[in-house]
Amino acid sequence: MGSVSAAVTEDVLFARALLSRVLEPANIPGWAMVRGEGPLAAAEQVRAGFVDGRRSEAIGARADQADPYADLEAAQRHGMRLVVPESAEWPHFAFAALEAAGLRRLATYRAGHVKHDEHGELIPPLALWVRGTIDPASVGVRSVAIVGSRSATAYGNRVATDLAYQLAQRDFVVVSGGAYGIDAAAHRGALAASGDTVLVSAGGLDRPYPPSSASLFDRAAGSGLLVSESPPGAAPQRRRFLTRNRLIAALGTGTIVVEAARRSGAMNTAGHCTGLGRPRMAVPGPITSGVSAGCHQLLVSERDPARLVTGVEDVLATIGSASDLSADPATGTARGRTPERSARIDDLDPAARQVFDGIPARGWISADRLVLTSGLPIPIVLQALPALELHGLVQAGPEGYRLAPA
Amino acid sequence: MGSVSAAVTEDVLFARALLSRVLEPANIPGWAMVRGEGPLAAAEQVRAGFVDGRRSEAIGARADQADPYADLEAAQRHGMRLVVPESAEWPHFAFAALEAAGLRRLATYRAGHVKHDEHGELIPPLALWVRGTIDPASVGVRSVAIVGSRSATAYGNRVATDLAYQLAQRDFVVVSGGAYGIDAAAHRGALAASGDTVLVSAGGLDRPYPPSSASLFDRAAGSGLLVSESPPGAAPQRRRFLTRNRLIAALGTGTIVVEAARRSGAMNTAGHCTGLGRPRMAVPGPITSGVSAGCHQLLVSERDPARLVTGVEDVLATIGSASDLSADPATGTARGRTPERSARIDDLDPAARQVFDGIPARGWISADRLVLTSGLPIPIVLQALPALELHGLVQAGPEGYRLAPA
Repeated sequence: MGSVSAAVTEDVLFARALLSRVLEPANIPGWAMVRGEGPLAAAEQVRAGFVDGRRSEAIGARADQADPYADLEAAQRHGMRLVVPESAEWPHFAFAALEAAGLRRLATYRAGHVKHDEHGELIPPLALWVRGTIDPASVGVRSVAIVGSRSATAYGNRVATDLAYQLAQRDFVVVSGGAYGIDAAAHRGALAASGDTVLVSAGGLDRPYPPSSASLFDRAAGSGLLVSESPPGAAPQRRRFLTRNRLIAALGTGTIVVEAARRSGAMNTAGHCTGLGRPRMAVPGPITSGVSAGCHQLLVSERDPARLVTGVEDVLATIGSASDLSADPATGTARGRTPERSARIDDLDPAARQVFDGIPARGWISADRLVLTSGLPIPIVLQALPALELHGLVQAGPEGYRLAPA
Repeated sequence: MGSVSAAVTEDVLFARALLSRVLEPANIPGWAMVRGEGPLAAAEQVRAGFVDGRRSEAIGARADQADPYADLEAAQRHGMRLVVPESAEWPHFAFAALEAAGLRRLATYRAGHVKHDEHGELIPPLALWVRGTIDPASVGVRSVAIVGSRSATAYGNRVATDLAYQLAQRDFVVVSGGAYGIDAAAHRGALAASGDTVLVSAGGLDRPYPPSSASLFDRAAGSGLLVSESPPGAAPQRRRFLTRNRLIAALGTGTIVVEAARRSGAMNTAGHCTGLGRPRMAVPGPITSGVSAGCHQLLVSERDPARLVTGVEDVLATIGSASDLSADPATGTARGRTPERSARIDDLDPAARQVFDGIPARGWISADRLVLTSGLPIPIVLQALPALELHGLVQAGPEGYRLAPA
């Protein structure tokens, strides 16, 4: 099946393709089932019309019609491939916070506090259909999501393009949703700088939405990545736009809202950032402009105020330190123990402390190796890493993680 | 001398008129001298060419040329009058924070830490030349300063006018500096709502600046107040624009910067607000607009971040509670002792606690009476009141002070 990692068996690939076709995104019982029983057993359940042990006529009917072979073939015809959590291509780093949020939701669900039919939003995807030139696993390390209104003003379009251009010049991957307005301006700005852009689509990648964006989809695939949870041919339904937004928030190191109405998809994405512990940024605008009202609301949020962005420097100040690969590692002291840092280390919970202690004094370590050096399972390691990053103790890069320079 | 309070002797009036002519505004030794020796002895010193015990040729020459009789006559001819600290018309309430800041500066000056020729900025004025229809003593109780760029955009002018209009409708006095752009828009907005506006001029009130603002000056005098530290005929020198700004900050319960370049008079006014403990508010705008850059800088200030204003509700939320005269006094309990309030009372420093204890359980009390009931000198009383207000313990009104309703 094309360029899929050799480590992934075809069985797993077909199972995930089936699950991706049958289960709606961000569905707690579906994710719980796959997580608990593995993709092969979960696919068996779904084929029999069960989700997480409960019978569902609708799922049974959809499973009867599903044809993962055909989906994977269609994907290959369109230059797409299926990336699964079992693959080295899976964006484990970007999804670590989503994984952690999913585990919290799952605990609540297992305790019976979430109804069976309720769709938890911050649930990791079961698989990703992708098309493009960059490694999905690298996305989120040095990336920024730029989102906003479809009804953008000339001002908003200009700002989105300029920010994306300047961030792409600084090797940030620009993530957005491919919509008219701010999204399109952000993608175009990154492409104009010959940078990489990630376009997260609500529908199948062979069905660009809006249809007039087909050339934008093609350009993003040529210098970046198209990403969707939906299999080929899937229509971009309203619900999928909302679940799609959590992936945008997760794939950005931080998210900039350039223009947004108070109730809008971009505000939904910003809400996901809070749930993921990702920094939110907002561009101010005229108070007379309805599409700046959401930005101003984010700036004064009591729970999680967005950082005010007037230029690329503000973005770098907000997310640059966590992802700045040009920082000089020579300035780091052994184990990162400076007096001011000791307090932060002492504040860590035991698991995070254990993960921190598993990071070598010098050089990079992969998440997989951290499982060995820390003695903790991968979900715990992945849950701890974003917190360690937020505390400025650990730095992420394409080679994995290292102690942050002092 | 016209409508000057009968309690002020002509000697004091002439002395203050002379001092106002000879001494530059916001001059520590000048203010220290008047404060320490009283206006009559200070005027004698100045006539002899001394300031605070030091000989000054320049002051002597200026005193020789000064003619307070002529200044007071010219003022009367132009419908102006001189308001002095000894008068009931003096804005004691508005200037309490300025008085406190002046006392802090004076302590530093007396300790030898401020050079003789250095001009401290947050120093109360020695006298005010005014013209208009409202009592100067009432300004600052329910007022808002709206300031900004002379090079305002259409957006800024619209916002300044709208905010001033809506605040004037809610019985706020709108304070500004009478300049082109934001200032003029603010005055006009208040006047359009048939509200009162206070125009603080850098030069003599008979010399409107810019000259084309003459009709604006006349309208403000007809529905509000013109205020200047400079005697009739005084030119609006550059330095006086800066010292003037401290009066704008002091006369507003809070200050809104609508549009301002990063280095500008409005930013200077906003800086004075911090020194006075007055809330600062800023209107966001396009990040592509140079005259919104100062506003955005204020919003992200680490020392004293401005409150983001998108409409009149934000202004009311920021300064309304401290100045809302429509609050029902019947809801206040005796001595304002509710459980949540007790902690705040216990946190007061001894002097503030003493002033607080001097406020009667019911009804209003003047600052003068508070000197008697608290047993503390007037500067201490005036210094404590803004803090008591900030803690929500005391409310100011035209009749003085009272316990804030619970």
